[in-house]
Amino acid sequence: MGSALAAALLKAGHRTTVWNRTAAKTGPLTAQGATPAGTAAEAIEASALVIVCLTTNDGVRALLEPEATALAGRTVVNLTNGTPAQARELAHWAAEHGITYIDGGIMAVPQMIATPGAYILYSGTDEEAYETHRPTLAALAETKWVGKDPGAAALYDLSLLTGMYGMVMGVAQAYALIGTGGVPARDFAPLLKDWVNAMTDGLVPGMAEALDSGQHLTDVSSLAINQAALPNFLAAFAQQGLSGDLFEPLQALLDRSVAEGYGADGLSRLATLIKKE
Amino acid sequence: MGSALAAALLKAGHRTTVWNRTAAKTGPLTAQGATPAGTAAEAIEASALVIVCLTTNDGVRALLEPEATALAGRTVVNLTNGTPAQARELAHWAAEHGITYIDGGIMAVPQMIATPGAYILYSGTDEEAYETHRPTLAALAETKWVGKDPGAAALYDLSLLTGMYGMVMGVAQAYALIGTGGVPARDFAPLLKDWVNAMTDGLVPGMAEALDSGQHLTDVSSLAINQAALPNFLAAFAQQGLSGDLFEPLQALLDRSVAEGYGADGLSRLATLIKKE
Ligand SMILES: NC(=O)c1ccc[n+]([C@@H]2O[C@H](COP(=O)([O-])OP(=O)(O)OC[C@H]3O[C@@H](n4cnc5c(N)ncnc54)[C@H](OP(=O)(O)O)[C@@H]3O)[C@@H](O)[C@H]2O)c1
Ligand SMILES: NC(=O)c1ccc[n+]([C@@H]2O[C@H](COP(=O)([O-])OP(=O)(O)OC[C@H]3O[C@@H](n4cnc5c(N)ncnc54)[C@H](OP(=O)(O)O)[C@@H]3O)[C@@H](O)[C@H]2O)c1
Repeated sequence: MGSALAAALLKAGHRTTVWNRTAAKTGPLTAQGATPAGTAAEAIEASALVIVCLTTNDGVRALLEPEATALAGRTVVNLTNGTPAQARELAHWAAEHGITYIDGGIMAVPQMIATPGAYILYSGTDEEAYETHRPTLAALAETKWVGKDPGAAALYDLSLLTGMYGMVMGVAQAYALIGTGGVPARDFAPLLKDWVNAMTDGLVPGMAEALDSGQHLTDVSSLAINQAALPNFLAAFAQQGLSGDLFEPLQALLDRSVAEGYGADGLSRLATLIKKE
Repeated sequence: MGSALAAALLKAGHRTTVWNRTAAKTGPLTAQGATPAGTAAEAIEASALVIVCLTTNDGVRALLEPEATALAGRTVVNLTNGTPAQARELAHWAAEHGITYIDGGIMAVPQMIATPGAYILYSGTDEEAYETHRPTLAALAETKWVGKDPGAAALYDLSLLTGMYGMVMGVAQAYALIGTGGVPARDFAPLLKDWVNAMTDGLVPGMAEALDSGQHLTDVSSLAINQAALPNFLAAFAQQGLSGDLFEPLQALLDRSVAEGYGADGLSRLATLIKKE
């Protein structure tokens, strides 16, 4: 991801200094016009804007903490995936050292960087610093500011990916199920894509309206109806030799929602019931 | 649903006889031109095509079995949701009594019947009977024939809804998570909808290709990367006071996929690992 980001900056004509723990990996970037740095400190000292993208935020802390002096007065944009709590801790550490900290969440794979549709979420206490660097950041992907809580970008990022992981579970189980009937996946794919998209188009805004208004009653697809329907699915999975493990917690959540008196509410109610016991 | 189906037939100008266990519910249909039947047998005897839509297939069996003689020589289209095994059992029973049986799966809510985008999946041993009645069935929704296995329509139906239920889990958990940051759901909804749709558009055909070819290796989003990322999500859920129950089985499946040596494969591999132990 770091290589894709640096390449996008170079392509947009930004003077770019690159550093990577395994130095050899910066070779292609140097060939594209980047200045290689021998140490992280050297890379930091080269620019007012320092973009960092490692595997985890533990790595980011380990890398940046010894460089606090070099970083003072500069802006760090951290595009490493992590939790809101990690982002807030890094922001707190940065503030103590006079470093401007902006957290980011990349909504793209490296192949999508600097192509239409890709975007990066940003948040941090210093919105002005973000505005200053936005023209540079815009070279990476569309920019989306999500607020002054440094944890906001991570929260949005994790929430979007959470939505995706649910879809992945559904689609994986759907392919497993249709496969038991010997149906080629490519024959089923267009139906599955259109159906999931149509349901997403309807449910996502519908659930938002219910959640914001607190009005969860529905006359279309109540929790009671879904609770009664799900055993058919678990039975079919078992009959077709499949595990129902991915869907058993949904049955439990539907059972609980009805037991707690929400049977006439729509699926939006579930979002309010996903609480730690 | 039965009322919506009968109303669509009437609207399309088909002579329609209606019967419902609770007779009063057919009143509005009679007002629209339907002929009310005093008994199920009377309704069956009125037409060559008998469309049945009850809550469950147990109800269908209980209703139709005593009417085998009246049904002989006619075509039953059963639009009740059920499992492939239930559909095959009903088809078997029907064949023994000289009844033509077509199973169906309605991909719509009642409000969507006879509107664009709604469709009904059909399957059964007698494709000719289906072709004979297709012009009538087309009044209900777009028709999609999915094969001569009577269980196929139910298998497609359950598989599509399975995909949807996964998406529902993801979206519910996503709204719960973003809600912990005090973000109004309507502010998040457009991002969530576009992101889940974009991922669905990419993943669903991509997984199909991998599943049909058996080539699951990826250079974009390997199971190892996803396995390493998911603990961030479970940690964030816990830190934000949410249950991770809906996603723990995904972590377990990812762990198993890597342990079994599939770490370099893409998400498509998961569909092959959802087997009963
Ligand atoms: N790839 C994607 O599709 C994608 C999409 C969105 C977000 N992201 C996020 O972007 C970040 C980077 O992703 P990636 O795919 O580039 O990951 P990656 O392939 O694991 O690369 C991570 C980079 O971090 C360096 N690194 C790791 N630990 C380090 C440490 N302790 N000190 C110094 N350098 C360290 C690695 O250096 P070496 O070369 O020396 O190992 C490498 O350059 C992750 O947080 C990821 O979640 C990735
Ligand atoms: N509603 C939807 O959004 C939707 C979408 C797709 C598929 N479906 C499927 O369509 C079917 C019907 O759905 P629905 O929403 O109309 O369900 P419903 O509201 O439960 O109505 C079911 C009908 O079945 C009758 N019934 C139930 N048990 C019976 C029995 N033992 N003998 C005779 N009649 C019986 C009921 O008669 P009474 O009036 O006397 O109770 C009623 O007319 C279900 O299989 C459902 O899964 C529904």
